[in-house]
Amino acid sequence: MPREVRERQMVDAAVEVFARRGYRTASMDEIAELAGASKPLVYLYLNSKEDLFSACIRREAEALIAAVRAAADPAAPADRRLWHGLRGFFAHTAAHPDGWAVLYCQARSHGEPFALEVAALRQRLVDVVTQLIADTARDGGCVKPLPGEEVSGLAHALVGAAESLAGWSNARTGSGGPGHSDREAAETLMNLAWAGLENLANGRRWAPARP
Amino acid sequence: MPREVRERQMVDAAVEVFARRGYRTASMDEIAELAGASKPLVYLYLNSKEDLFSACIRREAEALIAAVRAAADPAAPADRRLWHGLRGFFAHTAAHPDGWAVLYCQARSHGEPFALEVAALRQRLVDVVTQLIADTARDGGCVKPLPGEEVSGLAHALVGAAESLAGWSNARTGSGGPGHSDREAAETLMNLAWAGLENLANGRRWAPARP
Repeated sequence: MPREVRERQMVDAAVEVFARRGYRTASMDEIAELAGASKPLVYLYLNSKEDLFSACIRREAEALIAAVRAAADPAAPADRRLWHGLRGFFAHTAAHPDGWAVLYCQARSHGEPFALEVAALRQRLVDVVTQLIADTARDGGCVKPLPGEEVSGLAHALVGAAESLAGWSNARTGSGGPGHSDREAAETLMNLAWAGLENLANGRRWAPARP
Repeated sequence: MPREVRERQMVDAAVEVFARRGYRTASMDEIAELAGASKPLVYLYLNSKEDLFSACIRREAEALIAAVRAAADPAAPADRRLWHGLRGFFAHTAAHPDGWAVLYCQARSHGEPFALEVAALRQRLVDVVTQLIADTARDGGCVKPLPGEEVSGLAHALVGAAESLAGWSNARTGSGGPGHSDREAAETLMNLAWAGLENLANGRRWAPARP
């Protein structure tokens, strides 16, 4: 079997074990067994538990970014671009709950260097959303472009909302609770955020009504 | 000096040191010195580094919840209730960046029992927002009440957005970047989320335009 395939099997097994047991409790014995490989071979290919965990984070991060990018149709109007991006995000996180748990629970819980890798992933998601909001404002014929600061804040808010919703949705599914499908998660966030983004793109802002 | 006052000084010092150094690197010597107390007295009052860290989490969590609750005026219309709640949240996280860092960076990064305490805080914030969204739907004369599942998803999304925005805003301020004031953070989130919530309360949902 080519090394590439073997390594992929090892990382598959590791994602599952890290997600289920947590980074510290996960054992290389269990990972090797699940991968159908010997423990010395896992060390030969992936070097150490720390490097194996980093490999899991990198692979899952790339897969999530790729899923979001693949879902977006750059020729669609802005609302459909956001909708497709959200559909891609939630479909991926729902289909890969172990990968999601490694990225957003395990990796953030074990300090450097793992937290830095997740921060880099997050920044890439924020960049995708920042571009989308800037495009929305432009397509909306925004008379005065939105300040970069505001676009950046909106992008961070939207990514935080998506992360939170994915975690909640996966936790419910994982605990056997009444399911909230990935389509429903995308609809929830679209309903929460689109009207506001469209308003901003058209220069309409919320202001408190006078009492 | 009464024990209560002494303990408060110790927790004040601990929040500052934990935020700056991280849980593992923080030294009880530095905390004692900053609190102007002897190390044996810190151990006598707060027992251990772990208990002291837990005390920091609990105090900062209570303070944040209290700030959000105090800001909301239950008699105001729904948009102003959300606005005041957001103002309270961002004013508090901006004024207490060390407390925020302990809650959202340090506590989440060091496993149980700390992560559980932060999860409990988060649930209380989600509960406050869930109630607010349910009230909004009712005030909006929502013909058909929003499903509980959807309200819960919206609340998780909104809390995730607020956390993400607070982290971004504090990181910018901390790094000496161009400031994004806590009022601007509240405005950003209000502009992002209010129109969507109002639409939902009035039975208006986003649907993709036919191509």
